Amino acid sequence: MAARARGEERRAEILRAALEVIAERGYRGTTLGAVAERVGLTQQGLLHHFPTKEALLLAVLEDRDHWDTGGGGRRREGWRLELLTSLVDYNAMRPGVVQTFSALLGESVTEDHPARPFFTRRYEQVRADMAESLRDEFGDRLPSGLTPEQAGPLLTAVMDGLQYQWLLDPDAVDMPAVFRDFLTLLRGGDAGPAAG
Amino acid sequence: MAARARGEERRAEILRAALEVIAERGYRGTTLGAVAERVGLTQQGLLHHFPTKEALLLAVLEDRDHWDTGGGGRRREGWRLELLTSLVDYNAMRPGVVQTFSALLGESVTEDHPARPFFTRRYEQVRADMAESLRDEFGDRLPSGLTPEQAGPLLTAVMDGLQYQWLLDPDAVDMPAVFRDFLTLLRGGDAGPAAG
Repeated sequence: MAARARGEERRAEILRAALEVIAERGYRGTTLGAVAERVGLTQQGLLHHFPTKEALLLAVLEDRDHWDTGGGGRRREGWRLELLTSLVDYNAMRPGVVQTFSALLGESVTEDHPARPFFTRRYEQVRADMAESLRDEFGDRLPSGLTPEQAGPLLTAVMDGLQYQWLLDPDAVDMPAVFRDFLTLLRGGDAGPAAG
Repeated sequence: MAARARGEERRAEILRAALEVIAERGYRGTTLGAVAERVGLTQQGLLHHFPTKEALLLAVLEDRDHWDTGGGGRRREGWRLELLTSLVDYNAMRPGVVQTFSALLGESVTEDHPARPFFTRRYEQVRADMAESLRDEFGDRLPSGLTPEQAGPLLTAVMDGLQYQWLLDPDAVDMPAVFRDFLTLLRGGDAGPAAG
């Protein structure tokens, strides 16, 4: 049991180190060697925990999802619209991890890519959690008239799609502002003073 | 002049062949060798027109944008909401080219990727064209209250983001239906009979 606890602690240390390296060096600059060095392991020692760079990056993304949505028992609450707004604000301050997510998502749609099962499962879960969370918040219809099941995939698409535009041209795309415009639509509210 | 015309014709042939190969074999399965064979060139002959697989694929995507939006002079009209709906319907029937687009977009956000300038320019242009087209269609405010400049990046994000979800799980995500839900929001209309 003590050995297992140490193993899990070491794993958590590696994920934290990987996140730092990603933030500093981006997706392409993140190598297993750089992460091993940061955490004080040989590359061989790191491979014992994560056999490939992809396996390590997917574990980082999984861990991020876990923390972003409040971890463990609070998963449904993690998708409340207010918290999603904070999440998008937060993402706008961490381009490294958003870039890593977006690059891996892009790769995952190609044939037999090792990240494909992760992302397929992730989106199935995200859509279901969002729908549940929206139902808790709004009931069977959002003020705009959409059902929670209609709004889930749209919310997800807006978040992902905006990240690409923002990563490519951060000065031209105000990701948090555009996301708020979408929430205004979703809430069926008015987006500007002149719209009466 | 005749030589140039022949060169352009050959280039167009190569792009058509590449599109066929992409449709049949997907992003990873598309090789310069397979495209050369299809069009009756040696690989060396193909390299004369397109020095890398990426250069060829980006030319295919550029060509697709050109045709999808009506080509040449009709660019603004190409983004009318009605035509975008048809475009999404059409995309749902050609997963190969959508996959190629999505995979390259994912790669393009990594450091110094050769596709980055193409996509950065593309999105700048798409957002501007969409805003112009929405202004032609709706004036300074859409019925939902958004300005054309607010709606442009959102429309783009929804189209791109939905493609990832759909490519990963085509049975779970009805891309054209979700896109129509978004247009309902954008038009400020009602999404379902029970919403009153």
